[in-house]
Amino acid sequence: MSKLTDVPKRILIGRALRSDRLGETLLSKRIALPVFASDPLSSVAYAPGEVLLVLSIAGVSAYHFSPWIAVAVVVLMFTVVASYRQNVHAYPSGGGDYEVANTNLGPKAGLTVASALLVDYVLTVAVSISSGVENLGSAIPFVVENKVLCAVAIIVLLTLMNLRGVKESGKLFAIPTYVFVAGVFLMIVWGAVKGLLMDETLRAPTSVYEIKPEHQGLAGFALVFLLLRAFSSGCAALTGVEAISNGVPAFRKPKSRNAATTLAMMGLLAVTMFCGIIALAAASKVRMAENPAKDLFKDGVPVGEGYVQDPVISQVAAAVFGDGTFFFIVLAAATALVLFLAANTAYNGFPLLGSILAQDRYLPRQLHTRGDRLAFSNGIVLLAGAAALLVVVYGADSTRLIQLYIVGVFVSFTLSQIGMVRHWNRHLRSERDQAKRRHMLRSRVINAFGAFFTGLVLVVVLVTKFTHGAWVALLGMVIFYVTMSAIRRHYDRVSEEISAPEEPADDIVRPSRVHSIVLVSKIHRPTLRALAYAKLMRSDTLEALSVNVDPEETKALKAEWDRRGIDVPLKVLDSPYREITRPIIEYVKSRRRESPRDAVSVIIPEYVVGHWYEHLLHNQSALRLKGRLLFTNGVMVTSVPYQLESSEAAKKRARKRADWNAPGSVRRGPVEKRPKDTSKPGGGRR
Amino acid sequence: MSKLTDVPKRILIGRALRSDRLGETLLSKRIALPVFASDPLSSVAYAPGEVLLVLSIAGVSAYHFSPWIAVAVVVLMFTVVASYRQNVHAYPSGGGDYEVANTNLGPKAGLTVASALLVDYVLTVAVSISSGVENLGSAIPFVVENKVLCAVAIIVLLTLMNLRGVKESGKLFAIPTYVFVAGVFLMIVWGAVKGLLMDETLRAPTSVYEIKPEHQGLAGFALVFLLLRAFSSGCAALTGVEAISNGVPAFRKPKSRNAATTLAMMGLLAVTMFCGIIALAAASKVRMAENPAKDLFKDGVPVGEGYVQDPVISQVAAAVFGDGTFFFIVLAAATALVLFLAANTAYNGFPLLGSILAQDRYLPRQLHTRGDRLAFSNGIVLLAGAAALLVVVYGADSTRLIQLYIVGVFVSFTLSQIGMVRHWNRHLRSERDQAKRRHMLRSRVINAFGAFFTGLVLVVVLVTKFTHGAWVALLGMVIFYVTMSAIRRHYDRVSEEISAPEEPADDIVRPSRVHSIVLVSKIHRPTLRALAYAKLMRSDTLEALSVNVDPEETKALKAEWDRRGIDVPLKVLDSPYREITRPIIEYVKSRRRESPRDAVSVIIPEYVVGHWYEHLLHNQSALRLKGRLLFTNGVMVTSVPYQLESSEAAKKRARKRADWNAPGSVRRGPVEKRPKDTSKPGGGRR
Repeated sequence: MSKLTDVPKRILIGRALRSDRLGETLLSKRIALPVFASDPLSSVAYAPGEVLLVLSIAGVSAYHFSPWIAVAVVVLMFTVVASYRQNVHAYPSGGGDYEVANTNLGPKAGLTVASALLVDYVLTVAVSISSGVENLGSAIPFVVENKVLCAVAIIVLLTLMNLRGVKESGKLFAIPTYVFVAGVFLMIVWGAVKGLLMDETLRAPTSVYEIKPEHQGLAGFALVFLLLRAFSSGCAALTGVEAISNGVPAFRKPKSRNAATTLAMMGLLAVTMFCGIIALAAASKVRMAENPAKDLFKDGVPVGEGYVQDPVISQVAAAVFGDGTFFFIVLAAATALVLFLAANTAYNGFPLLGSILAQDRYLPRQLHTRGDRLAFSNGIVLLAGAAALLVVVYGADSTRLIQLYIVGVFVSFTLSQIGMVRHWNRHLRSERDQAKRRHMLRSRVINAFGAFFTGLVLVVVLVTKFTHGAWVALLGMVIFYVTMSAIRRHYDRVSEEISAPEEPADDIVRPSRVHSIVLVSKIHRPTLRALAYAKLMRSDTLEALSVNVDPEETKALKAEWDRRGIDVPLKVLDSPYREITRPIIEYVKSRRRESPRDAVSVIIPEYVVGHWYEHLLHNQSALRLKGRLLFTNGVMVTSVPYQLESSEAAKKRARKRADWNAPGSVRRGPVEKRPKDTSKPGGGRR
Repeated sequence: MSKLTDVPKRILIGRALRSDRLGETLLSKRIALPVFASDPLSSVAYAPGEVLLVLSIAGVSAYHFSPWIAVAVVVLMFTVVASYRQNVHAYPSGGGDYEVANTNLGPKAGLTVASALLVDYVLTVAVSISSGVENLGSAIPFVVENKVLCAVAIIVLLTLMNLRGVKESGKLFAIPTYVFVAGVFLMIVWGAVKGLLMDETLRAPTSVYEIKPEHQGLAGFALVFLLLRAFSSGCAALTGVEAISNGVPAFRKPKSRNAATTLAMMGLLAVTMFCGIIALAAASKVRMAENPAKDLFKDGVPVGEGYVQDPVISQVAAAVFGDGTFFFIVLAAATALVLFLAANTAYNGFPLLGSILAQDRYLPRQLHTRGDRLAFSNGIVLLAGAAALLVVVYGADSTRLIQLYIVGVFVSFTLSQIGMVRHWNRHLRSERDQAKRRHMLRSRVINAFGAFFTGLVLVVVLVTKFTHGAWVALLGMVIFYVTMSAIRRHYDRVSEEISAPEEPADDIVRPSRVHSIVLVSKIHRPTLRALAYAKLMRSDTLEALSVNVDPEETKALKAEWDRRGIDVPLKVLDSPYREITRPIIEYVKSRRRESPRDAVSVIIPEYVVGHWYEHLLHNQSALRLKGRLLFTNGVMVTSVPYQLESSEAAKKRARKRADWNAPGSVRRGPVEKRPKDTSKPGGGRR
């Protein structure tokens, strides 16, 4: 292995540091928590409201079920956290659910998880930004009046930031996340103090409204169905839990243990905040309706179209702190910011997952280098486009978008946990150490319960939400799945076609001789350079070739050729229709026909320019010719570049591009070695 | 000069025939007339109406000036035809006004003419199609109710036809043009018979209307100005006269004489039709107003917004044949068809002029092969886009578009005639034969008068129409002029930069040795082929280079390398960030630093696939790498293609594309040799 000679220079120009010098940039738990938890923690900003919304269908009386739903969500959260603590220990490489499913359940399951996660990243952006806009709107009316516009603007802003490659820092995440968590806890405590100790009555702004239930006196199966639907919506609080399992390499040692601890802390915080908000909402009599315009009444009159339903968290904040007070504003701002950070998480996760999929050849191979700007740019633009589309179609309404959400998460939860069960089964077959076996058996029980529970939730979510929008998410998953399978099939077919035979085959047998042709249009520096290089290569024969497009130009060329005494024979092809490509192709083919065992090397002088518009003015004939020549068997095409002065500008730009920082580097950790994907047959890299 | 070995095959697959076998496809005068004259003849469909429109500003009483304006147009037409008959004899090569101005007045005048002609081609499409739609609309109300839509649809249709490369035939032009001419003559004769012999009163549909003059009792300077403006509009009848001077090579021998005769015939026909229609319009009391909605009155009431003003030719036809009769419909259809053919003329002329300009390096050089599909496609799309834009902006209103028209034609007329005067001056200096001198002196007088008269008209057109829209045309000319100058300057600068020094300079001195590097990602057929070819080239040193993106893959590669006993040393570069491009670039640069006198040859195995989407899946790393390598001095980059099975499809497509027929081949004639552009310094072709 060679060592790179200029590592110091690379460091000087500011690139990411090498893995062996990076110990100190690993994340402590204190920083890791906000970095990974903005997504799951931020979901308490909308999940409680969604629960109340669904319950309101059966009228305010159904609100008394909300604590039970909170309990169910808490149990589910503990189950998922416990399950993922096993994942973190078993797969410390950061491959996440895709890796677990792929390794243990096979490529189809892996691809299903990947499709689900990709869809979910899109929805994370759409839901988080819509909800963030709604929270911001509770403080700034303009924002809520122009919801779609603001949401799209924030998507564009995040996209540009990520495309430019903003260097992420842990602190960037830490401050708003901790402010948000502290704010919510302060609100819960202050609300409890006010309500219980000071015996004040908390009054949410909507407490004066009445709800006209869409279905009065719901009972039996219908009520159960409604409660399950409310529970499904509450499950939005669980999205993003899997993020830590992708980020284990970014933790300080002991990595897995620290990650597991962070996971537990995150679960605890989320659950407490979720329950606290639900309780405060009940205490302050928050009223939410699915169709506020016609189902929400004030003094017997429907509130009408103009009514804007503020999120539960801001209604509760208004009840506890007072509307428009300092704490109210700070909490609204922190909530919005955390939600935008949660959206930003998807900007990191989506292209990262894309690069892993590319490595397994489900996506174009050129995306597979992790730090590669192109890979990230493509992923970021795709993500932003899809999220913006959803935001526009659904009017940036988080309630409607939530219906699409969660399906993907639970597909990936369930398959990942089933995969973990198989993982333990496999290890138990070979493991003889009783202590370890006991540990594994315990883990297996946890994962099996997790698989069962999340699978159940998945069924509930699918049943209760399919017609409400989950089908859109499923359709998205199918599209990703089919596209990626097709790409993989193509690569496999090509890989088959080009696999090297053990015995040299006809088409790769060494040709006996090589005949070099230098293309010449005029005698200038690029041509002279190409001729010099061609002579250097010592092929068997060498000639210069020109196409006679203009007889006078050709005559002048020949005369100068002789005058300069260039010791390469010049051949001129006639071109009655002033074409360039065709006569050359025909000539090369005729050479090949004359001696099929020989190879032809075509050498093309090429201008290198600095601006794209200059590129339009040069090399176009050469490019087209090259394109055609490549289809000819037994030909190789050599470009001899001649750098024009303006190319310096492009060189600088290219260097600048190379110094770009991929987003999400903090979260991913400095370096990672994924274990080999066992399902992967040999295939070409480029 | 080599002969192409497969001419018979090329003929079999249907390409344009070679010049030496093409005598029989040259145009007879009978066919040449309709081919070239659809543009000038069709303008009688709108020019008379425009004259009346302008006159109406001063009220119906001003209509009695219309015969005088017709006389002025006739005199101008004869002058222009006489002048161009000189052009045709002096410049039989088909270069047209651009060539004449460029050769005799220098490149700036040439470029001005070229800009003017390009703008005029755009306007020919916009005006002809708008007018065609109006004529069609006089028979089919739907068309006139959806003018813009129909006009754009026809532009799209013509564009697609020309992009596909419809093979043009003389007959295609002959039939509608002769039907149109015959119809108009029949109308004139029949109208004369009815009006003079049978003493019937001809009554146009608008004869019952009254016109409220915008300026009552105009006199003195204001009246002269109005008459000049009416004359300017009438000059629209002259557009397209120069077409024949571009098409001399397409005529049978004696080419120039036949072209001159055809020119005269065309002038005579156009003038007769123009005057006949003006006379019939006067006899049948056609009423046209610039703003019919408010200036046209029926029984003292304005006709209002809904009123559609039919073209003069269709009003006259209604008066002579009767509205909706067989002859009326046939004439309307033939008129529309001829106008669309006139628009099609621009589709041939615009890209052709573009290719001539490209040859003189005012446009990207790759457009300079005449039969080249790409050149034509670009030109056609640009033309169609600009024309469609004008049609949409001006609501497909031929009257408003006419205001922009003519400026370009007269710029080119005037400069061309001035150029001709200089041409004769030059020849007179050397010519001693008295008979020839007399002939030249006579020609010079004609051209001088032509230059004077067209120059006068140009001033009149500019003065009377500048604020009405001519400024838009001028702006278009300036944009073309500036862009083309900038392109030419760029080419000249590059040409300067790369011009070969007499003594070998540093940067093109023959490097002493060459070091070859074959890039390897896996061992498969493309790699083996690239290795075989690289060995064939006998460079001084040869090594294979791989980037260690995935340690396990690299290990496998090394093992297989050894197992197969490949006799090329394999070097592996470390890539801590999984990059491919950067380590290779760094390595190549370090090789160059070690021995700056040596060249490095980088050999890249490349997949060749058949579909663009497959292309997205392959070669992207290779392409990017190549792009970067080309910026490095002393490097040459060789692609060794490996054709995958799917590449066959692309090969077939490419062949099909090559068999495409350029539009306008009939009109251009089979082969042409432009005399060298004397102003052109040496420059690179690609």
